[in-house]
Amino acid sequence: MAYITLNQNNFNNNADYYSNKIGNKNKLCMALKDNAYGHGIEYMAKMCFDYGIKHAIVRDISEALLLKEFDFESIIILYETANKKYDDNFIFSINCLDDISSCIKNTKIELKINTGMGRNGICINEIDEALKSINKNELILNGVFTHFHSADEKNDTAINQEKLFLETVNKIKNKITYKFRIHCSNTAGVHKVNNSLYDIARIGIGMYGYSDTCRGSLKPIMSLYASKISTRVLNKGDGIGYGASYKVLEDNTLVSNYDIGYGDGFFRVNEKQNAYIQDGSKILGRISMDSFSTFGDKKEVCVFSNASHLSKVHDTIEYEILTHLLPRIKRIII
Amino acid sequence: MAYITLNQNNFNNNADYYSNKIGNKNKLCMALKDNAYGHGIEYMAKMCFDYGIKHAIVRDISEALLLKEFDFESIIILYETANKKYDDNFIFSINCLDDISSCIKNTKIELKINTGMGRNGICINEIDEALKSINKNELILNGVFTHFHSADEKNDTAINQEKLFLETVNKIKNKITYKFRIHCSNTAGVHKVNNSLYDIARIGIGMYGYSDTCRGSLKPIMSLYASKISTRVLNKGDGIGYGASYKVLEDNTLVSNYDIGYGDGFFRVNEKQNAYIQDGSKILGRISMDSFSTFGDKKEVCVFSNASHLSKVHDTIEYEILTHLLPRIKRIII
Repeated sequence: MAYITLNQNNFNNNADYYSNKIGNKNKLCMALKDNAYGHGIEYMAKMCFDYGIKHAIVRDISEALLLKEFDFESIIILYETANKKYDDNFIFSINCLDDISSCIKNTKIELKINTGMGRNGICINEIDEALKSINKNELILNGVFTHFHSADEKNDTAINQEKLFLETVNKIKNKITYKFRIHCSNTAGVHKVNNSLYDIARIGIGMYGYSDTCRGSLKPIMSLYASKISTRVLNKGDGIGYGASYKVLEDNTLVSNYDIGYGDGFFRVNEKQNAYIQDGSKILGRISMDSFSTFGDKKEVCVFSNASHLSKVHDTIEYEILTHLLPRIKRIII
Repeated sequence: MAYITLNQNNFNNNADYYSNKIGNKNKLCMALKDNAYGHGIEYMAKMCFDYGIKHAIVRDISEALLLKEFDFESIIILYETANKKYDDNFIFSINCLDDISSCIKNTKIELKINTGMGRNGICINEIDEALKSINKNELILNGVFTHFHSADEKNDTAINQEKLFLETVNKIKNKITYKFRIHCSNTAGVHKVNNSLYDIARIGIGMYGYSDTCRGSLKPIMSLYASKISTRVLNKGDGIGYGASYKVLEDNTLVSNYDIGYGDGFFRVNEKQNAYIQDGSKILGRISMDSFSTFGDKKEVCVFSNASHLSKVHDTIEYEILTHLLPRIKRIII
């Protein structure tokens, strides 16, 4: 059966890198949302716990509830509001004014400020109204944050967003008497801002081993392995897969079929694309829902231990290759 | 929260179509593998049960075990062998000679014959050895089948595969004294063969509403809906999403963000692609892990009720758009 390994040493390497970068491992906030970018949320939470990471971000309450045993000091819930009392470490992100009145009294919230992403968050001209509503609804403003849209690009947009964010934070500080935390950095952002100004840094893809900004310093955590279903010897002209779109070039060619397909959330390769598994063997013809073929007869193959090649084949980003992999594939920490 | 609807009337329409095509609804064998092509295996099994479908195909034992309450007469398990006794209606597909000796005594099996797919199945020159091994291991040969690789193409390859299959079946019949069932058709195959010759027809994508061979007669079952996270009014030149790659064209543009992203197994659209949700509204800029943006401020939007447009945008097939959608998205039968 196909399975995924999660490399603890590689995770520790990445966590060390970002701890050093932001100056303090206690400020690391790990993005565990979307099943930990497809890696398996409970497995990655265990690694965070073992490393001593104190803060996490998830997508919704159902993900936050999976983290109970891992003792996070704070868990930011990005896309759901609190209509009842939850654990004290649950912190609800406010994406729009309506979210404020959707939360019950005493809910801990963090205001997301829209500084140019143009998606979610309170707009600058809505700040006064937001603060009034927080007060009226008796919510606890635990923090204020923003999200960079282009921190991985070589221009000043992140710097400009940060400036706007800090101005907004000061405006809020003038109106709120108690202390609240502030944060803005994502993976690429930590290279652009003065990290000492912020209480936490939210690191996602970098912790999983990918970032164009510091690729050489990071190590991908996930490897995907597939097991052989069958082997056969094919002859020149024989077809492989749907449309028989791969034609065997020589007699007595040894070919095997492995148990990963697009039904696993793995991306379908077609006959026009050149895609290779980790050892350099070509994926032959079209990937089926349940399997793919390659040369040789190894009992097991590593499909990838670095998603970069496949992300280029599919004109996408590593995030997507990783997050699509279905939760039903077995995960093992190594 | 985002959710998926599964339309029972559309399913019944498709089931009627294929029942008529093959002459008898008792011969319908529904492909429920890979979480029912992403639709939700237990929901689709319930629809099959209500319609009176008696046969199913799944990927592995864990999927077969989910079907217990739906009284299928036979469940073909494609990619796992029986190392212990399972329910009487479990039938294990034999993909290679080694699979035969992996099954315990009295396991019901079906021999898959490789007639040109070049992936799994017993090769023609291995038939004698396979029959000897079945006998030696005291397995029950419940059936013999093959799989077409190009039944949806306008050429004779399926006919040639069928001919080879029937010759092989006759060869086996001469050596086996008891009756076994035979089948070869998939969705497109039913249009190419004389269906009265076969005991069942295995229908996958057609039952879910897609087939180039008879598109006008089928109705897609699945619709995907997303809920609004937030709305904002943006001005000319404002960016949306990562890289701020969509630039707003006019002042006072109403834009909303919805809770489907590539972290749901939905395919990421980038700024080079032109993709639209079901009502024709453009997906603006890059899709994020958790959300996408479009014009307007509807509380809820239908992302798609037909996967064909998105499959073209992503240069793939509808199957992949459907199967990648994660099981955690709520399903509702309507």
